Amino acid sequence: MRITQFHIPTLKETPSDASVISHKLMLKAGMIRQIASGLYTLMPLGLRVVQKISNIIRDEINKIGGSEVLFPIVQNNDVWVRSGREKGYCGPETLRMKDRNGVDMLFSPTAEESAQLIFEMDIKSYKQIPVAFYQINTKFRDEIRPRFGLMRCREFIMMDCYSFDVNEDLARKTYDNYFCAYLEMFKKMGLVAVPMRAASGEIGGDLSHEFHVIAETGESGIFYDKKLDEMRQNIGNFNIDDLKNVYAKTDDEHSSENCPIAKENLVEKRGIEVGHIFYYGDKYSKQMDIKIQGQDGKLFHPVGGCYGIGVTRIMAAAIEANSDEKGIIWHKSIAPFEVILLNLSPKDENCVKKCDEIYEKLKLQGIDILYDDSDNSAGFKFNNADLIGIPTQIILGSKSLEQGEVEIKERKTGDVKKVRIENINDVIRV
Amino acid sequence: MRITQFHIPTLKETPSDASVISHKLMLKAGMIRQIASGLYTLMPLGLRVVQKISNIIRDEINKIGGSEVLFPIVQNNDVWVRSGREKGYCGPETLRMKDRNGVDMLFSPTAEESAQLIFEMDIKSYKQIPVAFYQINTKFRDEIRPRFGLMRCREFIMMDCYSFDVNEDLARKTYDNYFCAYLEMFKKMGLVAVPMRAASGEIGGDLSHEFHVIAETGESGIFYDKKLDEMRQNIGNFNIDDLKNVYAKTDDEHSSENCPIAKENLVEKRGIEVGHIFYYGDKYSKQMDIKIQGQDGKLFHPVGGCYGIGVTRIMAAAIEANSDEKGIIWHKSIAPFEVILLNLSPKDENCVKKCDEIYEKLKLQGIDILYDDSDNSAGFKFNNADLIGIPTQIILGSKSLEQGEVEIKERKTGDVKKVRIENINDVIRV
Repeated sequence: MRITQFHIPTLKETPSDASVISHKLMLKAGMIRQIASGLYTLMPLGLRVVQKISNIIRDEINKIGGSEVLFPIVQNNDVWVRSGREKGYCGPETLRMKDRNGVDMLFSPTAEESAQLIFEMDIKSYKQIPVAFYQINTKFRDEIRPRFGLMRCREFIMMDCYSFDVNEDLARKTYDNYFCAYLEMFKKMGLVAVPMRAASGEIGGDLSHEFHVIAETGESGIFYDKKLDEMRQNIGNFNIDDLKNVYAKTDDEHSSENCPIAKENLVEKRGIEVGHIFYYGDKYSKQMDIKIQGQDGKLFHPVGGCYGIGVTRIMAAAIEANSDEKGIIWHKSIAPFEVILLNLSPKDENCVKKCDEIYEKLKLQGIDILYDDSDNSAGFKFNNADLIGIPTQIILGSKSLEQGEVEIKERKTGDVKKVRIENINDVIRV
Repeated sequence: MRITQFHIPTLKETPSDASVISHKLMLKAGMIRQIASGLYTLMPLGLRVVQKISNIIRDEINKIGGSEVLFPIVQNNDVWVRSGREKGYCGPETLRMKDRNGVDMLFSPTAEESAQLIFEMDIKSYKQIPVAFYQINTKFRDEIRPRFGLMRCREFIMMDCYSFDVNEDLARKTYDNYFCAYLEMFKKMGLVAVPMRAASGEIGGDLSHEFHVIAETGESGIFYDKKLDEMRQNIGNFNIDDLKNVYAKTDDEHSSENCPIAKENLVEKRGIEVGHIFYYGDKYSKQMDIKIQGQDGKLFHPVGGCYGIGVTRIMAAAIEANSDEKGIIWHKSIAPFEVILLNLSPKDENCVKKCDEIYEKLKLQGIDILYDDSDNSAGFKFNNADLIGIPTQIILGSKSLEQGEVEIKERKTGDVKKVRIENINDVIRV
């Protein structure tokens, strides 16, 4: 993409109305713009990150048999009455409305009910399951005091998934699959995520884990057994029950007196909650009286769980976890672009020609490249590239063109190496 | 994708509550499910079509310089007061709500106002434009009598785009670019689309075109000069003004007495409106008093237009345009999958092994393939494959395996050819 055709409204000054790093940097890098209290437009750069995060989530959920759907955003209140959650779950954060026929509707805060309805329509026999429906869609939470940018806004994007199994054993295995898939996706996104046992609250059930991304600026303190760090890196080699039960607690629940982990084995960090999974058994199928036929010919209530991830929240958490004084440092897998090409001499025809050539060639090879073909000064381009945090910078100006070389800079380390123009591919294609 | 891991709840019987073909076939093929009046879940197969259509739109809009964003779905009513449209545009079809602070909000029916707000924040000078923001997002229209499935539902997906230019000449050129991009995308989707001059209504401005997809079951009669058919196929070779002004009218506006086209040159068809573009000049920037600095140093109101396409409506229109008594006939570019592999002998180990092998090989080559690896009968698989309408079927059973051959059937024509298993690629990779 040419930067002159792609709207990235970066700011010189750090916005004074933002207090957390991700909010400041997303505004400064032109990734988001607020258009009403707690309501943000995802600008082109921000949307690309959201799309990359979404695709990593899709890949992992598809692998374990999830089917992607899109539930309606507007729900009928009746179905919440049917599930018995109309009073409990739908608090003042729920945005309610009446349609023109006077029917009570609401802006979907979650979709357990919708998933049960879909299940009820088409699934009649144990032979048709396991099945799981997931969506990546917009949610609304009417925060009384929206703040911290995308960390506590009102409208945001979530992945929410609902699984159905024949019996508790199988459903708990499905839960384990999601548990592992979550660790896998965070790893792919270059994030350190800590799973921890959690209360199930209004969702229900007796088994639940939260996933927190480690970041110095995290909203809560977290304490965990240091063996978790090793386990997380080698998910397949460990017993899933060990992984699920390793000591990990937020500061609300951790107490240094009663902690079973020796001090030297305890890691203390700060974290941001980005995911939450639940096993809720037959809570919804029972309450909504949804049954299918079992192997023995008898009707039974299917069991299952639900699995949520905050997509826009992950974007914010990734910035909280990885930035420096110059700006954002994206992991390659979720960066808005993998490579940025800077033309330092836009008035030198030869340099323009060579940059155009490099850009077209890399693009043709499927490299996800942003090309700063603007008339801005070299200094501006350097600062801008560091601010928006694309992992690899290819830098070419009149002088280096004379030498037949580009500079390739890694945003994270700041390391620069000179590379012959004809050898760019050896460095770029990893 | 293996069909056993991908939820396609096809129906044996045609649903009796559906009156139009697209509604019937989308229900029967398991693409959509209604969960409240006019509110549909896009099931896995339906969502894939929506994603393919969306990507074709993205490609064409990106090419002409559009920047993809995501505006909030919930809007503050204040901004509609500012644009002067709060009374005019937001009729009873608009879903309104109050947030918990009592602020009047609404479910975005369109985003001219949001686009103007984003523009106002970051664009200060003529040097920063042209610019255009587009999104693919959910819209709500509170139809008093939802019907015809996705053709007249309440929640749907649209692409809406908003362009900004320095002066009327350039803005009208931008309009022309969108006009051509629309023709190009419909062509890519395998649809015959007729552009016709239209009234601007509440959007405003003096120039507007609707795009209708030709289908026997179309909602309105359309009449057009037959030279349009040739022009549409060779967009680049024709004067854009000829294209824009060629005779084309809906039956509301056409009159056989006053028609300037000779009877033998007049084509009469039925059509479904799927897109609408507008040039509205400075209507919004003036009303909202948004100005930027011109080349002469003076402030001025930027001018522009907006461009809408119904993404879910295109899916329905494509089915109305292309189906037969067996089911849907997808064009390759928007088919949920390009190829379906049918294993007719799921109890024959050798056949399973060979099908697995073919599937893995084609998948690895990047072919978008659905694999019917279920235990269903051959008859069921044939009917199902014809119903869901994937363009190419690869058919393998024990008998043909003995001959070392598969059958390759084109869904559209029904043509079958026998191909050596090792030569599948010669036929599949087009």
